[in-house]
Amino acid sequence: MKKQSTYLNCDMGESYGSWKMGCDEQVMPHIDMANIACGFHASDPLIMSNTIKLAIAHNVQIGAHPSYPDLNGFGRRSIPMEPEEITAMLIYQIGALQGLCASHNTELHYVKPHGALYNDMQSNLSIFEAVVSAVSSYSLPLMTLAITDNQPLLDIADRYDVPLLFEAFADRRYQANGLLAPRSMENSVISNRDALLDQVQQIVKYGKVRTLDGFLIPIEADTLCVHGDNDQSIRLIQDIRKVIEQQEEVCR
Amino acid sequence: MKKQSTYLNCDMGESYGSWKMGCDEQVMPHIDMANIACGFHASDPLIMSNTIKLAIAHNVQIGAHPSYPDLNGFGRRSIPMEPEEITAMLIYQIGALQGLCASHNTELHYVKPHGALYNDMQSNLSIFEAVVSAVSSYSLPLMTLAITDNQPLLDIADRYDVPLLFEAFADRRYQANGLLAPRSMENSVISNRDALLDQVQQIVKYGKVRTLDGFLIPIEADTLCVHGDNDQSIRLIQDIRKVIEQQEEVCR
Amino acid sequence: MKKQSTYLNCDMGESYGSWKMGCDEQVMPHIDMANIACGFHASDPLIMSNTIKLAIAHNVQIGAHPSYPDLNGFGRRSIPMEPEEITAMLIYQIGALQGLCASHNTELHYVKPHGALYNDMQSNLSIFEAVVSAVSSYSLPLMTLAITDNQPLLDIADRYDVPLLFEAFADRRYQANGLLAPRSMENSVISNRDALLDQVQQIVKYGKVRTLDGFLIPIEADTLCVHGDNDQSIRLIQDIRKVIEQQEEVCR
Amino acid sequence: MKKQSTYLNCDMGESYGSWKMGCDEQVMPHIDMANIACGFHASDPLIMSNTIKLAIAHNVQIGAHPSYPDLNGFGRRSIPMEPEEITAMLIYQIGALQGLCASHNTELHYVKPHGALYNDMQSNLSIFEAVVSAVSSYSLPLMTLAITDNQPLLDIADRYDVPLLFEAFADRRYQANGLLAPRSMENSVISNRDALLDQVQQIVKYGKVRTLDGFLIPIEADTLCVHGDNDQSIRLIQDIRKVIEQQEEVCR
Repeated sequence: MKKQSTYLNCDMGESYGSWKMGCDEQVMPHIDMANIACGFHASDPLIMSNTIKLAIAHNVQIGAHPSYPDLNGFGRRSIPMEPEEITAMLIYQIGALQGLCASHNTELHYVKPHGALYNDMQSNLSIFEAVVSAVSSYSLPLMTLAITDNQPLLDIADRYDVPLLFEAFADRRYQANGLLAPRSMENSVISNRDALLDQVQQIVKYGKVRTLDGFLIPIEADTLCVHGDNDQSIRLIQDIRKVIEQQEEVCR
Repeated sequence: MKKQSTYLNCDMGESYGSWKMGCDEQVMPHIDMANIACGFHASDPLIMSNTIKLAIAHNVQIGAHPSYPDLNGFGRRSIPMEPEEITAMLIYQIGALQGLCASHNTELHYVKPHGALYNDMQSNLSIFEAVVSAVSSYSLPLMTLAITDNQPLLDIADRYDVPLLFEAFADRRYQANGLLAPRSMENSVISNRDALLDQVQQIVKYGKVRTLDGFLIPIEADTLCVHGDNDQSIRLIQDIRKVIEQQEEVCR
Repeated sequence: MKKQSTYLNCDMGESYGSWKMGCDEQVMPHIDMANIACGFHASDPLIMSNTIKLAIAHNVQIGAHPSYPDLNGFGRRSIPMEPEEITAMLIYQIGALQGLCASHNTELHYVKPHGALYNDMQSNLSIFEAVVSAVSSYSLPLMTLAITDNQPLLDIADRYDVPLLFEAFADRRYQANGLLAPRSMENSVISNRDALLDQVQQIVKYGKVRTLDGFLIPIEADTLCVHGDNDQSIRLIQDIRKVIEQQEEVCR
Repeated sequence: MKKQSTYLNCDMGESYGSWKMGCDEQVMPHIDMANIACGFHASDPLIMSNTIKLAIAHNVQIGAHPSYPDLNGFGRRSIPMEPEEITAMLIYQIGALQGLCASHNTELHYVKPHGALYNDMQSNLSIFEAVVSAVSSYSLPLMTLAITDNQPLLDIADRYDVPLLFEAFADRRYQANGLLAPRSMENSVISNRDALLDQVQQIVKYGKVRTLDGFLIPIEADTLCVHGDNDQSIRLIQDIRKVIEQQEEVCR
């Protein structure tokens, strides 16, 4: 594990059978936390096993990245499920990845739900509780979106004794209420490199982020979510890392 | 766990979504070991969770019952896979069930592969080794068919430090070589109740079984496989249990 | 095809692989229209083929019963999909069943979407249009819920030149607006045999149905949906048929 | 359809959900026949629909490319199935694609099984008959491997009135018996561009192919199978086309 205060996490192991997705080999050296898909929206047992080996080789923490059962929709579609179904489905996926980790003599560090399930748990407390209940059975932290008012989530997590890891997004704009601006909104995604690195610095240095309407709001971010789909995004990850490391040197 | 020397094991949790299979509630009180499907040939996370609860309520040992990925064929079709794929696939399934067990504060006791995978591992040593490798990662025993010459299997299992549990079949005839007569062979299945109970007694009392051609051959059986699909088979399980218990009383 | 004015339709072919559902052999002789599952919520190619043969043997019209892709949820869960995805998915399923019909020298008569998709198309006009667009490509009628104000649906169907078949439910109570009372509502399901047969007579004789709050509202029903899960429901189908036939004799 | 005597066929529409495979847009302009996956080893309804549109835009014949049910293994694994299951499964897939073709006012031209099923039908006559039986129900030709002694296959196809289209491979070496050398054999794949184009010329000009052990054997090829996975292979397709066209000019 690289030493730094703000970790970079990235989705990994999202190939499936003969289909490849992402540049895992190129990205793994530059991140701190690998969110490994668990077979329900992407990945299969062999890909999971190989992704674990790759994470170990680069000293990267492994997180479970479970999802709704939706290969064809890549886990981006909300599937209506009862809370007890969600809990069982997550315990299943986390256990499968944990078993593969153990077979490589390593262990899971955290859980970060994927796609529609990640969004649903942020906006629906009964789904959040179903997720927390599953995670509590593994005594692992749960990664959630860093928002301004995270007290309702913390209250539930505390009841189950589940620590929360808060993540912020380098490439997404925030609304005044501290939530991400939906992708459908104009300017919700930061495509300009300098603007993106500025946002990283704001988060890392000041614990703040500037909203779409220009205000600075506080944001508590343990980790930044990055993407590694192509050469350009991999260079961006390296730039983000530099901003973080410079900030840390200043602090020492 | 009921106290006895020869345990009864039965496939459990083989429903799927809205489809029901087996009479788990009626059978569970009469068996010692529940082979719980892991979602690849049958079952889903919620059914697995509920089957674990049922096993706990009846003090029944839980075994993982993993399979080739084949819902539509119920795991009865051999899927050609590389050994490393088989190993990863089994670690995945066993881990999923183990996680659900842990969420109910219980644990796995053994692994028994299902259907075509069970048959394939008996006849193909590289598949057997792939299975043993997966099981070794959980420090659990592996259930295999009791055959006359089990030395080749024992040699592999020993290398991985995996104990073997041998199972015999109450309702299947054996060949002279100690293997089960294939279902396609005439008289391979014992449908007569008395003949079946006779075979149970032979196994439990003398450690022997009479082959199709009339010879008595030795068979080492830790457990008997039973089926619980309907009322008649459930009564048969109770009869088998009685034969075993009578034998044990005589021994004391 | 039995001669009568109000046809009985029933879901058929909803087994999957080794799992059986419904009593198709017992029900088929008593119905007029078989809604055959197309592999996305239930059924598989062999079951579809065998169900077609059974329908032919009893001179029953065959309808395609396509669904969201949701085996584990039996098509009862709404899966968010773009209209063009829904259209392509339905053309796929209908074409598959049509091909199997042609291989048995018979043909499709209509399309009735299943479960969550049926409900969604009734309440969401863009989903309804996606369904109609798929059905139009086969020049078949589409079965929908008979409601008091069906003009918005008719307008869309007319634009695509798709005839609508309206179905009513014998065993469900209606709301004042002509929609089915949701199952969660008290008294929404009619379990009393006489009350159910009364409702059938009201529909067949007067083209009306009594709402939960006691009013009679008009309902235009080409067909009644019946269920064939067990012996009791099969006897009920026979009783419903008698009510319809008596009414028709009176009319002659 | 481009005018020429030897057509080029290529697998198309083998993406799945969010996973992309192949360079369909770049390849389609250079081929004559598109083997479109039908959702069992790759593709989904929307991808199939879009691939049909692409084929129409480039005036390319559409063939159904059905497979064993094996998304995770990309249809490269033999799944043991009864002949009647294979037949029903192929009618299902072909019907699905035909329905999508009809929705775009075009039609299917032929059927070419994929992967393990293609291999199995060449070596197992009961599987070949199951395939032919499915194809006969659509009155389409079936594409098979051009081999020296194709009489046994022709006999079965004739009984079902199914025309055969024979395909040869530009990039694979043949054995003395006229079958492809298995990929595991040394030199079985022709990676040298000139050697590959030589083989194309031999096939197109003389109807012969040189075997691994140096003999010239006759081969009757209606079409050549090409691959379009990357820029290099697309250039190769263009080179192969030139060889064919030059040959045809000479013939006029």
